[in-house]
Amino acid sequence: MISKETTVDSNVANKEILTNAFYMATPSQSWTGLWAHPGSDAMSYNRLGFWTDLARTAERGLIDGIFLADGLGIHDVYRGSPDAIMRAGGMFPVNDPMMMIPAMAAATSDLCFGVTANSSYEPPYLLARRFSTLDHLTEGRVSWNVVTGFQPSAARAMGVEPVRHDQRYDVAEEYMDLMYRLWEQSWEDGAAVRDRERRVFTDPARVHRIRTEGRYACEAFHPCEPSPQRTPFIYSAGASARGMRFAGTHAEAAFMSVSDKGHASRIVDGYRKAAVDAGRGADSVKVFNAITVVVAPTEAEARDIEAQCREFSDGEGNLAMLSGFIGQDLSKYGWDDPVEHVESDAMQSVLDAMTRENGGRTVRIRDIASFSGLAGSEAYVVGSPSQVCDELISWVDGTGIDGFNLVRTIEPGGLRSFTELVVPELQDRGRYKTAYRPGTFREKLFPDGGPHLPADHIGSRYRRTGVAAGGSAS
Amino acid sequence: MISKETTVDSNVANKEILTNAFYMATPSQSWTGLWAHPGSDAMSYNRLGFWTDLARTAERGLIDGIFLADGLGIHDVYRGSPDAIMRAGGMFPVNDPMMMIPAMAAATSDLCFGVTANSSYEPPYLLARRFSTLDHLTEGRVSWNVVTGFQPSAARAMGVEPVRHDQRYDVAEEYMDLMYRLWEQSWEDGAAVRDRERRVFTDPARVHRIRTEGRYACEAFHPCEPSPQRTPFIYSAGASARGMRFAGTHAEAAFMSVSDKGHASRIVDGYRKAAVDAGRGADSVKVFNAITVVVAPTEAEARDIEAQCREFSDGEGNLAMLSGFIGQDLSKYGWDDPVEHVESDAMQSVLDAMTRENGGRTVRIRDIASFSGLAGSEAYVVGSPSQVCDELISWVDGTGIDGFNLVRTIEPGGLRSFTELVVPELQDRGRYKTAYRPGTFREKLFPDGGPHLPADHIGSRYRRTGVAAGGSAS
Repeated sequence: MISKETTVDSNVANKEILTNAFYMATPSQSWTGLWAHPGSDAMSYNRLGFWTDLARTAERGLIDGIFLADGLGIHDVYRGSPDAIMRAGGMFPVNDPMMMIPAMAAATSDLCFGVTANSSYEPPYLLARRFSTLDHLTEGRVSWNVVTGFQPSAARAMGVEPVRHDQRYDVAEEYMDLMYRLWEQSWEDGAAVRDRERRVFTDPARVHRIRTEGRYACEAFHPCEPSPQRTPFIYSAGASARGMRFAGTHAEAAFMSVSDKGHASRIVDGYRKAAVDAGRGADSVKVFNAITVVVAPTEAEARDIEAQCREFSDGEGNLAMLSGFIGQDLSKYGWDDPVEHVESDAMQSVLDAMTRENGGRTVRIRDIASFSGLAGSEAYVVGSPSQVCDELISWVDGTGIDGFNLVRTIEPGGLRSFTELVVPELQDRGRYKTAYRPGTFREKLFPDGGPHLPADHIGSRYRRTGVAAGGSAS
Repeated sequence: MISKETTVDSNVANKEILTNAFYMATPSQSWTGLWAHPGSDAMSYNRLGFWTDLARTAERGLIDGIFLADGLGIHDVYRGSPDAIMRAGGMFPVNDPMMMIPAMAAATSDLCFGVTANSSYEPPYLLARRFSTLDHLTEGRVSWNVVTGFQPSAARAMGVEPVRHDQRYDVAEEYMDLMYRLWEQSWEDGAAVRDRERRVFTDPARVHRIRTEGRYACEAFHPCEPSPQRTPFIYSAGASARGMRFAGTHAEAAFMSVSDKGHASRIVDGYRKAAVDAGRGADSVKVFNAITVVVAPTEAEARDIEAQCREFSDGEGNLAMLSGFIGQDLSKYGWDDPVEHVESDAMQSVLDAMTRENGGRTVRIRDIASFSGLAGSEAYVVGSPSQVCDELISWVDGTGIDGFNLVRTIEPGGLRSFTELVVPELQDRGRYKTAYRPGTFREKLFPDGGPHLPADHIGSRYRRTGVAAGGSAS
């Protein structure tokens, strides 16, 4: 069965390009150390004004969303120590990303918010309430990036044993089952009657108690009345076979981080196939790729900014970050060693993107140090607005991706330059919206659908048909 | 040892009266059903604008804080069903209270925020990060109301067995131990060096790994750099002997809900003694009592508003709420039965406040139904500004309490009338501040102290002296 949403063919020529500003509540992300650049405001990551300014800048520039990454542990694999990553301000310290969203939502009207939350560690009943609350407060502009956690340091912080990769996803399936029950099954549409005349807020006959057993046992009514999207728009970044199957089942948007277009194209095909395998339309998953964009009015000026990024990028911090991601201490390697010499059984997707899926280039340890922690695995473009637009369009048309997560560099200048220089040129070329679409996150990204999960999504199977009220109350 | 803070003698005559607006992210609280009043905006409890308007109203009126109650379950004891409380919109539906704070903080500069979070259900490592984030974003204006949970329905929602009352507090002590370690012990002052010249964000020699075992096992660095208050200002509402001991040890403010001044005075004495028993100054705990204030320019107008409150108060909802609090189905009693006939072994403090500690009055079941779910157990005053001020001052001077949690009635009119009619008269009488004090929540309430826990508080024992950096890193 093909749902309405899939009539939007994401492979059409001239499709509009989607963009997220890729952030995290931390001084610096994959380009560790850039917080120290004199033009960076990243030291204010712990101030409300930082986030409300960011949100306003993004909305002025018609950016689709702020995508907030998160990590509960610290990258402490490099030299068996967290020292390098601490000095570099690389994803540590890190605040709770959900807390910025209400303030950013109050400062904007259409900008959307994707936020990472870990299904291995957050109690589902509490997380379901938190997302419903955010979906109410943002009027449907919130999205959950489902992650299962990969860092042993996070498991130690939570006082639990790390779970094996594939098993994490099996557990996550159980978790999603409870979340859908709470979001989709507990309250019928219209159960919050809010009837002043009859003085009835909620019709109890149309609110149903959820009962699950096992790992995620729960016996409760969902504590929130239905929010605009019910289930928040769902992101996933699973890149392994199992992760891709999870994304094909649950995700409405997927996020990846690859540098080679052929590789990207194969991953896009993988997501589309996974969606079809899960009984969904091939285009029911929007795919975003991470990209570092350095743009200026002229290529020479852009190259100058790039040189500043490289100068301020923290070599030890970058190696520490990558060591953490792949679970291998890169200090054991020489700076001229190609990354393909590194053996790891964690985060194979990151290593693949740097090695055999890197278009034949060779990434060496020194490239990581002198560039960013994800050097060679993330797409990258430097140039004039015209050059950048050419490359972005080439990415979208050549790979089937739908848009980009714009990697944070020297901010707020980086995002502002993108919105002032790149967005207008993309608009001129008919490849970028000129206004936000109305409605929720889900409706903005899938304009032919409604605010709720589409009919071919697993979560919609949890919904009550709502024909006869009162039958199965409580 | 007596800390500096205790030089503020809360028993002095003419002390300034503190106020919190007592809210919850739900249509109605103890006065169930008032959301249906034509003048009420409570149906917008799930909109950001409701909260930012509330915050601005409160700050214009120099209210000290918004105190956000919470409950993870539903009051389903009455007639063995949630039906009555659902219809009445009484503490259900209920959103996550933390999510409103960042938006309210962005709309204000001095208003503080107390928020309830449950130590029985929130993973401590995640809750510690969330509070540190809020303390950063609010610039030190956040407070944690520590609760351990009393509702069997909440335990069922979380898929766990309810814990016995006294044991809950023992578990909470373990919980607090980890929280203090994370907030006070992990980062030395100045460890976030933020040195652009040396390109060092965090000095790893001054950040320490926390290690605990047992129920709350954790091996981690606190993920947040020190926030303005480090440990957020701490509220507790424990009223049992064990709860009072917990408050005496941990709380910087206590909250109670009693209607009789003699009773209040004994509880205040209890808190002061509990603080002294814990090695703290007698005045190191500010005590707030809940009070319903109905004020208007004239007593006659106030009586008219009171009549409207009674008319819109939902009788079944009120009985359902009280039944939930005390764990006894009040439908089994006749409307003329005095509440003292009700037998319960839960929430004895609420029953006590209605019966033997009610100044000799008799509260009957019908009084609950025709008034509020906490009728007879909450203080109450109706009248002109002058009458209300007389009563508030009589409370403070007669009992030793420090201030009030203003119970929500028909809002926003109720709070606005308080700020426009009562506050100016209290100011004229020298009993209310004329401007906010600078600094964090802790400094505003204890102006002789600093932003951090005072030296005689148990949490301060966790702090490192910080003499020699580098010794015990990680």
